[in-house]
Amino acid sequence: MTTDYCIGFDADDTLWHNENIFEKVHERYFHLLSKYHESATVEKALFATEMRNLELYGYGIKGFTLSAIETAIALTDGKISTEEIHEIIILGREMLDHPVEMLPGAKDTVDLLVRSYRLILITKGDLRDQERKLRKSGIADRFQAIEIVSEKDKHAYGRIFLKHGIDPKRFLMVGNSVKSDIVPVLDLGGCGVHVPYRITWGHEHAEIPKGLEGRLFEATSLLDLPPVVERWRSAH
Amino acid sequence: MTTDYCIGFDADDTLWHNENIFEKVHERYFHLLSKYHESATVEKALFATEMRNLELYGYGIKGFTLSAIETAIALTDGKISTEEIHEIIILGREMLDHPVEMLPGAKDTVDLLVRSYRLILITKGDLRDQERKLRKSGIADRFQAIEIVSEKDKHAYGRIFLKHGIDPKRFLMVGNSVKSDIVPVLDLGGCGVHVPYRITWGHEHAEIPKGLEGRLFEATSLLDLPPVVERWRSAH
Repeated sequence: MTTDYCIGFDADDTLWHNENIFEKVHERYFHLLSKYHESATVEKALFATEMRNLELYGYGIKGFTLSAIETAIALTDGKISTEEIHEIIILGREMLDHPVEMLPGAKDTVDLLVRSYRLILITKGDLRDQERKLRKSGIADRFQAIEIVSEKDKHAYGRIFLKHGIDPKRFLMVGNSVKSDIVPVLDLGGCGVHVPYRITWGHEHAEIPKGLEGRLFEATSLLDLPPVVERWRSAH
Repeated sequence: MTTDYCIGFDADDTLWHNENIFEKVHERYFHLLSKYHESATVEKALFATEMRNLELYGYGIKGFTLSAIETAIALTDGKISTEEIHEIIILGREMLDHPVEMLPGAKDTVDLLVRSYRLILITKGDLRDQERKLRKSGIADRFQAIEIVSEKDKHAYGRIFLKHGIDPKRFLMVGNSVKSDIVPVLDLGGCGVHVPYRITWGHEHAEIPKGLEGRLFEATSLLDLPPVVERWRSAH
């Protein structure tokens, strides 16, 4: 076992579905406000509220729910009913209580890689919500460490590398977000595998860095990850 | 430096004020609903909602805000105005943005103890909110490790002891909550110093265990902690 080589996994939209739950809830939220505004207007206003509140609320469903209530009141000039606001609260609770749906190949690929690599899970968001999803996923025990952080930036990865004695040159991060999973890790001298999810939240959009041959890989799903890991491993 | 002796500190209502912020917000919330119900009725209903939502929301201000909105709608049969709901959202944001007010002796005592002991901070609640308060406190760097957990029970302390190589027999936990700071640590064979705060949230009430002479200490404030630590240290 080559334990000095370490593979980091993102969780939401990498190991299991997440944005599709938000997508469904957005649809129901647009429907709720459809007598006041078109979907596009609501979507734009909601995103603006979320961005304004991000520093205080952080990531996660509770902050989303609060921003959705705030947006609904503002967009309807207060005319939205309290019953409809209660529906938004219920939407939020349904999201928190949603079953965890694994992405294709996630479990098998993790089970394969854990035989040869040290695996760690690095995710951002709400502590209790991420712990609950991890428990429901049934694969928490494959990871030597689980790091739930409030922001996935260069500093957070740096702290994690230090804490777990990870050499960035022998670290490969697997995730769907170029901004949170790829860019900061490449910045620190590590490698990344971008596994795009069908939907990307506006806030996670980022340019794929150029001129990083051999350090940035692509895979269409976790089913395709093992040969990518082989390529990375033989080059580093 | 006797680094094998470790002192754990709780944060909210041990190092800095927290319940007094909730108390002030409760007053404003009661005032907001005073045309519908008496304070006692509102308080009881809010606590019941919080307890019902605790498993899903966890601890923290965002969950509190959502429970406060839900309670307000239910208690007024939906008659509360959306303007008033917006006020509740603003109350929540003010709490998140509140300055950190250190408790008497907190900084000096930590500064004194860090010279002779390994200190760790163990707090529960919302990840981003706890990180923000810690940053504002200006004393984060005194702690060798900072553990923000979703629940402070026996399992959480057990994991922390294992992770940091802490011998419970040489561990002293300092905190205001008998339930979260004292009972689980004593259960694992450690010692505790109970430093009561003026207000205790209903959920944190617990009986002080009996028959634990020499393992459970009391201090009226962190100003009185150093001699208590001396007594603990000389007995263990």
